[in-house]
Amino acid sequence: MHFASDNTGPAHPQVMQALMDANDGYAMPYGVEEQMDRVRDRLRALFEAPDAAVYLVATGSACNALILATLGQPWQAIYCSEVAHIEEDECGAPEFFTGGAKLALVDAPDAMMVPGALRDRIARTDQGVVHGVQRGPVSLTTVTERGTVYGLDQIQALCGVAKDYGLPVHLDGARFANALVVGNHSPADMTWRAGVDAVSFGGTKNGLLGVEAAIFFNPAHAWEFELRRKRSGHLFSKHRYLSAQMLAYLQDDLWLDMARAANAACARLRDGLAKIDHVRLDHPSHANIVYCSFPRAAHVALKDAGAQFYSMDTLDGDGAQMVRARLVCDWSASDTDTDRFLDILAG
Amino acid sequence: MHFASDNTGPAHPQVMQALMDANDGYAMPYGVEEQMDRVRDRLRALFEAPDAAVYLVATGSACNALILATLGQPWQAIYCSEVAHIEEDECGAPEFFTGGAKLALVDAPDAMMVPGALRDRIARTDQGVVHGVQRGPVSLTTVTERGTVYGLDQIQALCGVAKDYGLPVHLDGARFANALVVGNHSPADMTWRAGVDAVSFGGTKNGLLGVEAAIFFNPAHAWEFELRRKRSGHLFSKHRYLSAQMLAYLQDDLWLDMARAANAACARLRDGLAKIDHVRLDHPSHANIVYCSFPRAAHVALKDAGAQFYSMDTLDGDGAQMVRARLVCDWSASDTDTDRFLDILAG
Amino acid sequence: MHFASDNTGPAHPQVMQALMDANDGYAMPYGVEEQMDRVRDRLRALFEAPDAAVYLVATGSACNALILATLGQPWQAIYCSEVAHIEEDECGAPEFFTGGAKLALVDAPDAMMVPGALRDRIARTDQGVVHGVQRGPVSLTTVTERGTVYGLDQIQALCGVAKDYGLPVHLDGARFANALVVGNHSPADMTWRAGVDAVSFGGTKNGLLGVEAAIFFNPAHAWEFELRRKRSGHLFSKHRYLSAQMLAYLQDDLWLDMARAANAACARLRDGLAKIDHVRLDHPSHANIVYCSFPRAAHVALKDAGAQFYSMDTLDGDGAQMVRARLVCDWSASDTDTDRFLDILAG
Amino acid sequence: MHFASDNTGPAHPQVMQALMDANDGYAMPYGVEEQMDRVRDRLRALFEAPDAAVYLVATGSACNALILATLGQPWQAIYCSEVAHIEEDECGAPEFFTGGAKLALVDAPDAMMVPGALRDRIARTDQGVVHGVQRGPVSLTTVTERGTVYGLDQIQALCGVAKDYGLPVHLDGARFANALVVGNHSPADMTWRAGVDAVSFGGTKNGLLGVEAAIFFNPAHAWEFELRRKRSGHLFSKHRYLSAQMLAYLQDDLWLDMARAANAACARLRDGLAKIDHVRLDHPSHANIVYCSFPRAAHVALKDAGAQFYSMDTLDGDGAQMVRARLVCDWSASDTDTDRFLDILAG
Repeated sequence: MHFASDNTGPAHPQVMQALMDANDGYAMPYGVEEQMDRVRDRLRALFEAPDAAVYLVATGSACNALILATLGQPWQAIYCSEVAHIEEDECGAPEFFTGGAKLALVDAPDAMMVPGALRDRIARTDQGVVHGVQRGPVSLTTVTERGTVYGLDQIQALCGVAKDYGLPVHLDGARFANALVVGNHSPADMTWRAGVDAVSFGGTKNGLLGVEAAIFFNPAHAWEFELRRKRSGHLFSKHRYLSAQMLAYLQDDLWLDMARAANAACARLRDGLAKIDHVRLDHPSHANIVYCSFPRAAHVALKDAGAQFYSMDTLDGDGAQMVRARLVCDWSASDTDTDRFLDILAG
Repeated sequence: MHFASDNTGPAHPQVMQALMDANDGYAMPYGVEEQMDRVRDRLRALFEAPDAAVYLVATGSACNALILATLGQPWQAIYCSEVAHIEEDECGAPEFFTGGAKLALVDAPDAMMVPGALRDRIARTDQGVVHGVQRGPVSLTTVTERGTVYGLDQIQALCGVAKDYGLPVHLDGARFANALVVGNHSPADMTWRAGVDAVSFGGTKNGLLGVEAAIFFNPAHAWEFELRRKRSGHLFSKHRYLSAQMLAYLQDDLWLDMARAANAACARLRDGLAKIDHVRLDHPSHANIVYCSFPRAAHVALKDAGAQFYSMDTLDGDGAQMVRARLVCDWSASDTDTDRFLDILAG
Repeated sequence: MHFASDNTGPAHPQVMQALMDANDGYAMPYGVEEQMDRVRDRLRALFEAPDAAVYLVATGSACNALILATLGQPWQAIYCSEVAHIEEDECGAPEFFTGGAKLALVDAPDAMMVPGALRDRIARTDQGVVHGVQRGPVSLTTVTERGTVYGLDQIQALCGVAKDYGLPVHLDGARFANALVVGNHSPADMTWRAGVDAVSFGGTKNGLLGVEAAIFFNPAHAWEFELRRKRSGHLFSKHRYLSAQMLAYLQDDLWLDMARAANAACARLRDGLAKIDHVRLDHPSHANIVYCSFPRAAHVALKDAGAQFYSMDTLDGDGAQMVRARLVCDWSASDTDTDRFLDILAG
Repeated sequence: MHFASDNTGPAHPQVMQALMDANDGYAMPYGVEEQMDRVRDRLRALFEAPDAAVYLVATGSACNALILATLGQPWQAIYCSEVAHIEEDECGAPEFFTGGAKLALVDAPDAMMVPGALRDRIARTDQGVVHGVQRGPVSLTTVTERGTVYGLDQIQALCGVAKDYGLPVHLDGARFANALVVGNHSPADMTWRAGVDAVSFGGTKNGLLGVEAAIFFNPAHAWEFELRRKRSGHLFSKHRYLSAQMLAYLQDDLWLDMARAANAACARLRDGLAKIDHVRLDHPSHANIVYCSFPRAAHVALKDAGAQFYSMDTLDGDGAQMVRARLVCDWSASDTDTDRFLDILAG
C-alpha cells in the first residue's frame, strides 16, 4: 500500500531494458551522443515545434530552476501559486539559480491560480519603479500540487494574462503526462499554442529513473541554458543514459500508458474514498493525486497495516481530531493494494 | 580506438545488473532508502572514518562545487592548480555555488602543485585585510588533469601547508580509484590521514553511469551540504539508483579492479608510445591518462582510421607542426585497440 | 508643503558644520580614522553595549541587507511583515545580498506583526526537512511602514517568539529615533534587552545626508560583516565624512531633538486631519508618518497648490473616488506649511 | 608628509561649499532632483556623448562592479591586468555583483596590459565550448595600479583586441582626471572614440568626499544598471549631495586643476627620488603615484619623522634589505612636505 509519492515505485521494465541496450560500446559524452539527436527529434515532433530547444536534466528542481533563471532576471518577480512546488519544496532553488529573484505568490484555490488573482498580483508590481522588483516569469504547475488539472481554457487564460504584460510562461510539468491524458489534448495545445514558453517535461514521476526534459519553444535562450546547466553541475558526461530513458519513455506511447494507469488507479481510490462516510475529499482529484481527511483512529489502522503516505494532523470544523493525507498513485499501483487500503479505512 | 575520455565507455555489467536488481518494488526516496544506509556504512568502513558524512550526487562538477561551497565562504580564495578541472572545465561552477569565491591559481608543473608555490600563493593573500579576498579551501586533484598522481608524501606536504594556515583541503577524486591503485595506499592514508577534509570520490569515470560520493571526514557541515544539494537540484528523488550503482562499485573490489584495468591499458599505451621515435610524451603518465605529441601526418592517419581522442595543434621547438593529444583509457579498454593505435601511429 | 518623505528635506546645519570641520587635513581611510573610534564609543555607550560591533554605511537598504546576510543563510527564510520595506522597496536587496534567501511574509495589521501570526508562520516552516527553506532571521521595522510604532511589550513579544525558535532578530530602524521618542525608552530597552540582535540605526531620514549604523550586539559576526560590506562596495574610503555626520547626530541629543520635532509636526498634521469630515485616517499615526484618504477633488486642490506627497487612487466603501495619501514630516517641517495644507484640504 | 593615498586628504573647499549650497530646502530624492539633470548634461557634453547613460554612486568598487555586472554575464570571464584593483583590492566585488564571473588575468608589466597578451588570453578561452567560462568584458585601469598611464594608442590597441572578439570594454577611471591631463586628450578620445563602452569616472580620489560616475556610452543597459544599483543598496535617497559634489567637480575645470596639482606634486617627488642614489624607481611614474625602493634604514627615518605611506619589505638583487613604497599625491599635496620627505630619505 504505497501511496507516498510517484517517486517510490520502480521504473518501467522497458525503461530498464533501454538502459541496458544503451550500455553497449562507446558513445560521445555530454549530450552529443546520437541518442540525444533522436530525443530532440522525438520531442520536437511530439510538440509540433521543429525549432524547440530540448535539454535533459535528472531532477525536476533543476529543470524548473534552470528554466526560470533563463527566462527571468535576478531583479524580477516570479509569479506562482502560493503552494507551488518551486515555493514550498525546492529549498529556494529558484532564488539560488536566478541570483535572488523573488517569488510572488498568487491565491490559488485547490492549487489552481485564478486569472483575476494573477492579473491583480502582476498589476500590483511596481513595474518601471526602481524600488521594487520588476515583473518576470509566470510559473504554472499541472497536475497541480493538490491533484487538480488545469483545463485548456484555464491555461490559455493564465497565459493570456501573462502575455498582456509581456511576460514569459513556464509550465512545471513534473506530471505532464498525467495532466495531458485527462483532457486528451495534444502536447502543443497544452503548451505553446496556449501561450507557454518553456516546459519542464517530467519523466521521473512517471516511470523513469530520473530524467526531465527542459523544452524552450523559442530557442533564443538555448545557449544560455546550456551554460547555466553546465555551471550548475547538471550536464551529464554519460548523457546517453538520460537519452535512453527518454527514448523508451516516448516509444509506443509508453509515457501515456503509464500516466493512464496511474490516473486510473487514483480514480479507483478516489471513488472508493468518496463512498466512506468518515472520509472527506479535500480537493478535486483529477489525475493521480488525491487529498483527503479522516479520523485519527482510521489513520492508526492504516499505518499499522503498513500503508505509506504523507499526512498531517488537523482538526475538522467541529474540532474533531483528523488526519489530512496525500495519496499518490504511480503507473505500477495495484488494485489489490487500493482495495485493501479502502477496506481498512472504511473500518 | 576510443581514447577520448573515460566517460565514453560502457558501465560495467555488474553495475547494470545492480540497477536492475534495485528496480524491485517500492523504496523511500531522497536518500533515505535502505541502500543508502549500506552505501554510508561501506564508505565509512572503506575510509576507516565511522563519523564521516557521506552523500551521493550524479556529476563530478556538482560534487566538487558543493563541497567547496560548504568548506568555504563567498569572500574567500580557493587555491588550486592553474589547470585544475574546477578552473578550466566547470564553466564557473565553484564561483556559482559559493556565491562568488575567487580561484587563486598555483603553478603546477605536470598539473601537480608544489608545496612551496602553494605556500607562497597562500602567504600572498591579504588575510585579515578587508580589501582582498581571504584565505579559503585548498583543492587538489589526483589523478591530476595531466595524468600524474601525487605521492602520499606530496599530498601530506600540500595538506601540511594548508594546515599551517588553518585551511580545509578538498580532494577532487574524479579518478580516485585510478590514483589509489598506483601506490596501493589505503583510502584513509590518501585522504584524512594525510590531511584531506573532504573528497569527491568519483565513480562515473570508472565504470558507473553517473555517481560521485561527497565525503566529509568531519560531519559538522553535513546539514549545510544537504541543504545546498537540495537547493541546487542535486538531491535525487529516486535515489536508490545512485545507491545501487555505488554498492555494486564497492562490491568485491570491482572499483579497484576497473581502475587497475584502466591503468594497465594506459601503461601499455604509454610504453608503446615511448618506443616510437616521432612521439614525445608530454607529461609523466602515472595512471590512465597519457599526453603526447606527434607529427600532424600521424594524426591524420589516426583520425582516418577512426581513432577518437582530444587534441590540439601545436609546434615543437623546431617549429614543426605537431599535434598534442590526450589519450584516456577506461576499464573496458582493449589491448587490440591499443596495439592498433600504436601501429598506425608508428606509421 | 513637502510631505513626500523624510528624505527630501535638508540636513541639519550642525551636521553640515561637522562635515566642514571634518574636512581638515589628512585622515586615515576606510573607517580607521579616529572619528570612527568616537562613533563606536558613543554608540556603545548609548546602547549600553560595550562589546557591540558598530559599522557605518550610507544607505538603509545596504544596512538592512548586509545585516540580514550576516545573520542568516542563503537557504533560510527571513520573516517580516507583508509590507516590510525589505519586501516592497529594496528591489530584492535581501535576496541579492544573502545569495537567495526567501522572505516569508507575516500578516501585519497597520504594518505591525502580531506575535501569534509570526509564530504560526515560523512554525509552518519545514525546519529540519531538506525540501523547504529553513528558519532564519526575523526582521521588524519601527517606526513601521504605515506610521505605527511598536510598544516595548510588542517588541519583546515578537523577539520572544523568535527566541523560542532560536532565531536572530533584526530591527530596521530607519526611523529609530522617531520610534524611540514615542515611548521615551532607552535604546537598550528597545533593542537588545527586548531581544534584538542587530539594528539598522538610521540617520538619513532624520537630518543626516546619508549615514546608517549597523550595530550587532553580539560581535561574533563582526568580521564577516566587514568583508560583506567591502565586497558589496559599501566601505567608504573617505569614511571620516560618515563618522562626522554620526558624531554630530549624537551630539547634545540632536538626533532626539530632530525626531521630536518631526513627530510633533506630524501630530499637528494628524490632529488637523482628524477634524476634517471628509478625511479618513487609514492607520494610527504614532510618529512622523500619517496615512489618510480624502476625495479626489481635495487632492487636486492640494496638488494645484504645490503640495508634495505620494498617493494612490482608491475607492471608499461606497465606491466614491478617493485618494490615499502618505504624509511624512521631517525635522524641518514648518507649522505654516502644515496649517496651509490642512486649510486647503478642508476646502 | 601624507603619501598613503589620494583618499586621505581633504575634499576641495569649493566642493564643500557646493554641499552647503545644496542643503537648501527640499529636493526630490533618488536622483530625480534637478541637480542630477545638470550632472547628466554636463557629463554628456564633456564626453561629447549626448545619449550616454549617466549614474552616480559613492564608491569606486561599487561603480566598477555594477558596470561589469551590467556589461557581462555570470558565466563569462572578465579580462584584466594581474594587478587590477578589481582583482586585488575589492574583496571579490566583481564576483559578487556578477553572480560568479571569473577574472582572467593578463600579464601586465608596470600594470599595463599588452595587446598581444590580452589577445592570447582571450583566444585561450573556450568560447562556444560549454565546459569553460565564455568571453566577457575587458577591464582597463588608467592611471594604472602602478602609476603608469596608457597612451591613447595603447587604449585603442587594447580596445581593438576586445572589438575583434566582440567584447565590451570597461575603463576603471578611479583616477581618470589624473590620466587625462597627462596627454591632454579629450575625454571622448580617451574613452568611446578609442572603443571604451563604459567608464568609472572617479571623483573620490581627486578632491570629492565620495562620488563616482558610471557612464555607459550605449544606453541600452541603462535600466538594468538602475535596478542593479538599487538592489545593491547604492541608490542614495538624498542623492542631491552626490550631484552637488559632481557639479562642483566639473565647474570651471576644478577636476582638471586638482589632477594637475596632484600630478605636479608627484613629478616633483619622482624627480627628487631619481636623484637619490639609494632610491630605485620601480615603475615609470606618469601621474600621481610613484613606486620606489630604498634601504630599510631610510624607511625607519621616514616613519620616525611621521611620513605616511604603504610599504612592504623586500630584497634587492644583492639580497640587501629594502623597502618598497607606494607614494601617492593628491590635489592638496604641499611642496614643503615633498621636499622634507626627500631630504629625510636622502639622509
